[in-house]
Amino acid sequence: MARLFLGIDLGGTNIKIGLFDDKLTLIEKTSLPTQPEKGPEFVIENIAVAASDLLSKNSFSKEELLGASVGCPGPVDLKRGVIENAPNLPLFRGFAFRDALGRRLNIPVTMENDANAALWGEHALGSARGVKDVVLLTLGTGIGGAVIANGHIVHGHCDAAGELGHIAIFPNGRLCGCGQRGCAEAYASASSTAKRAIEEIQKGRESTLKELLEQNKTLSCRDVYAHRDSGDELACEVTSLTHEVLGRLCAVIQNFISPEKIIFSGGMIARGDDLLNDIRAEFEKYAWPGRQDSVEIYFASLGEESGIIGNAALAIEASRNIEN
Amino acid sequence: MARLFLGIDLGGTNIKIGLFDDKLTLIEKTSLPTQPEKGPEFVIENIAVAASDLLSKNSFSKEELLGASVGCPGPVDLKRGVIENAPNLPLFRGFAFRDALGRRLNIPVTMENDANAALWGEHALGSARGVKDVVLLTLGTGIGGAVIANGHIVHGHCDAAGELGHIAIFPNGRLCGCGQRGCAEAYASASSTAKRAIEEIQKGRESTLKELLEQNKTLSCRDVYAHRDSGDELACEVTSLTHEVLGRLCAVIQNFISPEKIIFSGGMIARGDDLLNDIRAEFEKYAWPGRQDSVEIYFASLGEESGIIGNAALAIEASRNIEN
Repeated sequence: MARLFLGIDLGGTNIKIGLFDDKLTLIEKTSLPTQPEKGPEFVIENIAVAASDLLSKNSFSKEELLGASVGCPGPVDLKRGVIENAPNLPLFRGFAFRDALGRRLNIPVTMENDANAALWGEHALGSARGVKDVVLLTLGTGIGGAVIANGHIVHGHCDAAGELGHIAIFPNGRLCGCGQRGCAEAYASASSTAKRAIEEIQKGRESTLKELLEQNKTLSCRDVYAHRDSGDELACEVTSLTHEVLGRLCAVIQNFISPEKIIFSGGMIARGDDLLNDIRAEFEKYAWPGRQDSVEIYFASLGEESGIIGNAALAIEASRNIEN
Repeated sequence: MARLFLGIDLGGTNIKIGLFDDKLTLIEKTSLPTQPEKGPEFVIENIAVAASDLLSKNSFSKEELLGASVGCPGPVDLKRGVIENAPNLPLFRGFAFRDALGRRLNIPVTMENDANAALWGEHALGSARGVKDVVLLTLGTGIGGAVIANGHIVHGHCDAAGELGHIAIFPNGRLCGCGQRGCAEAYASASSTAKRAIEEIQKGRESTLKELLEQNKTLSCRDVYAHRDSGDELACEVTSLTHEVLGRLCAVIQNFISPEKIIFSGGMIARGDDLLNDIRAEFEKYAWPGRQDSVEIYFASLGEESGIIGNAALAIEASRNIEN
């Protein structure tokens, strides 16, 4: 009889589900649209059907599925298993998602913050494999963060640790969505990078991006980088500030918990080595002189699978803890 | 037969030594001048004689002393038990202090960074008692820091975690002793607070502190606060910036690891509730709106004993680990 576990990554747009054995080998994965507007019960039903399909397609029985973990967008209340206030999941607010999913699947289900789960996946099988002190920064619409210290995820009081995108880099700087000023996220996320370019053009700044903005009514971070590559001055300035902020953020992280590695994930890392080298160069400028070499800055290596792998690893650990 | 442990706090000026039982009850403590210019072997001999005196004065035998821990100014290499580069202990650089002390005392000796040991003391018996996620900031000549996450001291890679005074608050700000710019320590330590007042007066700024500076050729942080109390505008400005920087630093700490408590220690806390209230008020301004209440800001409660208590607790734990 096999010992199987589900790693579930619940996003605002898609749910990814992976079926794993107890050695953390992925047997099969699937993805389905979340449709959060239909509410948490609907989503749970869809997860249960998808899980059942994964089992039967691979000729396993329900009895072989021993546990699951679900990664959810923060803030989450992990003690109660509740998604508190995720902007993309308004109907889930206050709903006891973990226990409802556990009842429907009829197995023990644990819950984790999505960034923490992604880092735990990288820690199990990816860029952070075996690293005891490591920090993850996810570069997307926002900047998420997760921290492992002494080999354990740092949840902090009220499960609110790892809000690394909301560390202030420029005091009294740009207003962030969180209400603080000067946060790294307000400058260096994909959407803030695009937004800063748009604002400059709207202020009358010349740029080769101007025509594209007029045509599409918006710009993406990818657009800004494409015009950086073709030498547009504004695009260079805007993206250079993105790199500066990320370098400064890495310096804060090093001074705070001195991780062996800082790893970046999220949509923006599609930019590749250019981005990584720019972040490293900026970090060198702002870090403690002589200590720059004590941290390695890398990209995450598991891509979109980090969440399902991390959750599966958490489910396997939880099952061991129950057995012991 | 008693089970006794030494908690040793090695400073640049004084060595504090406490004799404890295995319930972490202080039996007797003593203090002696470090005389670091005479080298580490001399210091070790003095510690051994003082330890022997503590035992005999209390009618214990050498056999009842089971272990010790020594807290040392950073940076330290805890794996090798070496004080790496403490500015006040130049002759100790690279010396294998932990093992040499262990040989002389003929008991197992562990080593810890002094700020970590102080926080561990507060965690055992003081303001941070039983708190799983807590941060210490020491306000003295510099600003030291220590972090406990998930109930464990965060050492980080190369034992360099907790350099919280060197988190940049103002990018491109004042040059810090570490070589970075805009560090909290460059504004808000006792010596930086005094230094900023001196610099302003030297630039020609009017202040009631001017006469005192001319008379004494220097100012202390205490002087600046005394003139704040009598309403001097410069003293108010300088100390208000100190509080602002400490409040902003607390906001960084909350966003990073979301501790249940942040506790302040060091010479500056003699200022009392006024300082605490000012820091709290500044934190409220700069923290994530709506999340201010999830962290408590307090003073440490053990005063100068935190180091010997923390080290004794570490020595007791080390002895349990050897037995198990």
